[in-house]
Amino acid sequence: MDFLRTVNASEVTVSSVPEGSVVFAKEPLMKVRGPLLVVQLLETTLLCLVNYASLVGTNAARFRLAAGSDKKLIEMGLRRAQGCDGGLSASKYSYMGGFDSTSNVLAGKLFGIPVAGSVAHSYVSSISSPDELKCRTLKPANKQEGEVDFLLLTQSCLRKVCQVLKVPQAETNLGELAAFVSYAIAFPWNFLMVVDTYSVLMSGVPNFCAVALALHQLGYQAVGVRLDSGNLARLSVQIRKIFQVCSKQFEIPEFAKLSIAVSNSISEHSLKLLAQEENEVNVVGVGTHLVTCTRQPSLGCVYKLVQVNDVPCFKLSEDEEKATIPGSKTVYRLNDGNGRPFLDLMTLQDEPPPESRKEVKIYKLGPEFETDVVIPEQVTCLHRIYFKNGQVPSDQFLPSINVTRSHAQRSLHSLGQEHKDLENPRPYTVAMTEKLHSLLTNVKRTSLLQ
Amino acid sequence: MDFLRTVNASEVTVSSVPEGSVVFAKEPLMKVRGPLLVVQLLETTLLCLVNYASLVGTNAARFRLAAGSDKKLIEMGLRRAQGCDGGLSASKYSYMGGFDSTSNVLAGKLFGIPVAGSVAHSYVSSISSPDELKCRTLKPANKQEGEVDFLLLTQSCLRKVCQVLKVPQAETNLGELAAFVSYAIAFPWNFLMVVDTYSVLMSGVPNFCAVALALHQLGYQAVGVRLDSGNLARLSVQIRKIFQVCSKQFEIPEFAKLSIAVSNSISEHSLKLLAQEENEVNVVGVGTHLVTCTRQPSLGCVYKLVQVNDVPCFKLSEDEEKATIPGSKTVYRLNDGNGRPFLDLMTLQDEPPPESRKEVKIYKLGPEFETDVVIPEQVTCLHRIYFKNGQVPSDQFLPSINVTRSHAQRSLHSLGQEHKDLENPRPYTVAMTEKLHSLLTNVKRTSLLQ
Repeated sequence: MDFLRTVNASEVTVSSVPEGSVVFAKEPLMKVRGPLLVVQLLETTLLCLVNYASLVGTNAARFRLAAGSDKKLIEMGLRRAQGCDGGLSASKYSYMGGFDSTSNVLAGKLFGIPVAGSVAHSYVSSISSPDELKCRTLKPANKQEGEVDFLLLTQSCLRKVCQVLKVPQAETNLGELAAFVSYAIAFPWNFLMVVDTYSVLMSGVPNFCAVALALHQLGYQAVGVRLDSGNLARLSVQIRKIFQVCSKQFEIPEFAKLSIAVSNSISEHSLKLLAQEENEVNVVGVGTHLVTCTRQPSLGCVYKLVQVNDVPCFKLSEDEEKATIPGSKTVYRLNDGNGRPFLDLMTLQDEPPPESRKEVKIYKLGPEFETDVVIPEQVTCLHRIYFKNGQVPSDQFLPSINVTRSHAQRSLHSLGQEHKDLENPRPYTVAMTEKLHSLLTNVKRTSLLQ
Repeated sequence: MDFLRTVNASEVTVSSVPEGSVVFAKEPLMKVRGPLLVVQLLETTLLCLVNYASLVGTNAARFRLAAGSDKKLIEMGLRRAQGCDGGLSASKYSYMGGFDSTSNVLAGKLFGIPVAGSVAHSYVSSISSPDELKCRTLKPANKQEGEVDFLLLTQSCLRKVCQVLKVPQAETNLGELAAFVSYAIAFPWNFLMVVDTYSVLMSGVPNFCAVALALHQLGYQAVGVRLDSGNLARLSVQIRKIFQVCSKQFEIPEFAKLSIAVSNSISEHSLKLLAQEENEVNVVGVGTHLVTCTRQPSLGCVYKLVQVNDVPCFKLSEDEEKATIPGSKTVYRLNDGNGRPFLDLMTLQDEPPPESRKEVKIYKLGPEFETDVVIPEQVTCLHRIYFKNGQVPSDQFLPSINVTRSHAQRSLHSLGQEHKDLENPRPYTVAMTEKLHSLLTNVKRTSLLQ
C-alpha cells in the first residue's frame, strides 16, 4: 500500500495514431511504455476509453457513408446509452465520426458540439384546445408594428391551406394546431414541428403549413417538420409536394425548401434503404442503433505485453486468433502513385522505415503469411507521441474536436471506395517486414519448446 | 431563463415498481406526476437511467438462468462498456440481476459489491526466468517457523507433479513457473492463476499444481485456476481429473475441490451449451456479452403523456405499436392458488382494485383485445410511491443493493418456469379492465374524429 501511494505516470510514454485515423485489425492503435506495474494498472482504463469510443466513432462513420454527404445527421441516443457518461461518449465520438449535431445539450456545452432537436409528442398532446393557450399574440419580426392575434391569423391561414390542399378542415386536430401556435409564439425563428402526433397528412402537415404561412406573414421563416413514424421516404415525398404546392399558391419560394427531418429507430440498414428510395428527407435523427451499435455491439481491442526489458514477449494461446505479435513495433501506411493507401506495414521499432520508390518485401498477416514485394510512392508513420514521461509534449497540442472530425473524414476519404463498401468491403492489406516475421517465428518456436 | 432558474421537483411525485421486480411489456414501470414543464424536462434523464439499467439487469438474470444456481458468476465487462460510468452501471445492475461479484474495484467500493478477479496474462508473460525473481522465500502459514526457499521447494514439487502426471518436465515453461512463484509469495492465500499463457496441460496446470503443493506444505491453501481459451468444458474436465490424481497421490483432499474458473467471450448461448456438456467449471467470468447485451443491445422503454389536468390523453401513431394507453393507471399482479402470478391487470387509477376470489372481466392486450373472466387468489399492487412532492417519504427508505438483488431473485422465482424459458417462453398475460378498455376505445375514436 505504501508503494501504491507513490505510483504515478512520470515514467510512462504513450504513442498513438492520431484520434480519428482509419486503422485496421491487428495494428497497434496505441503503444504504452513504462514501468511494468504502472502500465499494467492502465490496462482496463485505456481499454475502457478506447474500445467504445472507437466503436461508436466507426459506427457514426458508417451511418455517414450510408446516408451520403447531403443529409444532416443528428445523434439523439442519450435515452438508450449506458447511463449519462455513456451518453456523453456517444455524442462526442458520433460527432467525430461524421455526425453534424447532438440532442444532448450537456455534450454541446462540454465539447462544443452543435445541438439540435425538435419538439416531443408529449408537448403536442398536452394541449387539447385553443382555449388552453395562455398567450395568443405575436409581434411581427420587424418589431416596429404592434402585436397580432396569432391564433386568429393561423386559423384564417388554415382555411386557405385546407382549401389549397383539399383537406377537410374538420379533420385537422384543434389541440395540435393550438400546440403549434403556442410553440411558434415562443420560438418564431425555430419552428420545426413533429407532425405525426395525429394524422400526418390530414392534420399535422396542414396545421404546420397554416402556422408557417402565418409566421411568414409576420416576417418570420419556419424551419420544417419532423416525422417519427410511418413510411418515412414516401411521406417525405408527399410532404415535399405539399410544400411545393403551398410555395406556388402562396408565392413563397422558401416554402418549397422547408426541412424534412425523420427519426424512428433508424439503423444503418434503414438509412441505406432510404438513400436508395425516392425521398425528400433533409435531416435524420439517429439514436438507439447508433449508440448501442446494434450491428456489432462491442469492439475487441486488447492490451498486450509485447516487450519486457528489450526482450520481445509473446502470448501463445489455445486460440490462434488470440496470439499476439511480439516486440515493440512501428506502423507505416504506404500510398500508391494516386495518393491512395494500399498497405499498412508493421516493422520492428528499430528497423529503418520503408523508403519511397524502393522495393520492400512483405509478409501479409494471415494463417499463411503470404509474401509479396511492393513499391510505395509515399510512406507515413502512423504513430505520434502524445504523452512523454508523464507530460503532454509542448509541440503536440491535443487537437480540437473539429480538427479530429475533419481528420476522420479526410482519413476515410483517402481510402479506396472498395474498402468502404458497407456490406462486402475488400479487406485492406496489413503486413509485416521480414525482420518482424522472423522474430515472430523465433519467439513462437521458443515458446513451444520451453 | 428566469423561470427556468426557479424550476424544481417540489411538486413532482414518482411511483414505481420496486427495483428488481419482474415486469412485462406495455406495463407502466414508473408513473411521474407534476407540472407539465417539469415532468417533460425529466423525460430523457429518467429514460437514460431506466433503460440500460433494466436491460443489463435482465440480461444478468438471463445469464443466471442459463448458468444454473451452482456456478459463481463474475461481471468483468468494464473494458467493453460505454466509458467508466457505463461500466459502473453494468457492474451495479448485473449484481442486482443475479451475478455474484464484479472485477470493477470502484463499483465494489461505491456499491458494496463483492470484487473478484484473477491475474492477467501479461503478468505471467512479463517474467521469462526464475533469475528475474526479486524474492524467492516465503514464511510458512504458521509464522513461528523461519522463511523457506519457496522457489526451490516449488521446483522439487514440480518434479513430483510431472512424474505423477506423466508430463515431460522440459515442456513446462520456466518463466510461467517463476511468475506463479512470485504471485504465490505475494498472495499465498489467494493463489488463483491463469493457466493458458502457454500450453494449459503441458505447462500451466503442472506449474500450478507444483506451486499449490508447495503452498500446502507450508500450511496454505491454493484457490484454483482460470482458463481463457480453448474448449472450456473439456479442459475443465481434464483439469479436474488432474486435481483428483494429485489429491489422491499427495493425500490432500482439498486438492480435488480446487476452483476452476473460465472466461473468454462467454455469451448466454455458450453458457447454456456449457451447462449441457459435462464440465467441472465452478466460476464463470462474463464481460462483453453481458454489458453490451449483444442479444438485444437496447431496451425501448418510452415516457409518454397519459393524462393532463385529469383528462386522459393519447398519442395515435402511424405505427400501431407506438400507440399509448391513455389515463393514469394502476397495475395489479394476480396470483393463482399456488401463489404463482398468472396475470397483470391494468386499471384506471380510481377504479377499485380487483378482489381476491372474485370474478373480474379482463381485456387481454393485443390487436384483438380478447376478453376473459379470471378469479385471482391473491392481488398485489405493483407500484409504490418512492418520491412524493420532491421528497423520499420517510416510510419508504430506498432498499440496499442486496435487498434489491434478493427481491429480483424472489420475483423471478415466483414466476412459472414456462415464462422463463430462454428460447421459447410462453408469453405472460397482461390485460386491462373493462373501464380502461372503454376509455381507450373512446379516446381513440375522438382522436380519429377530430
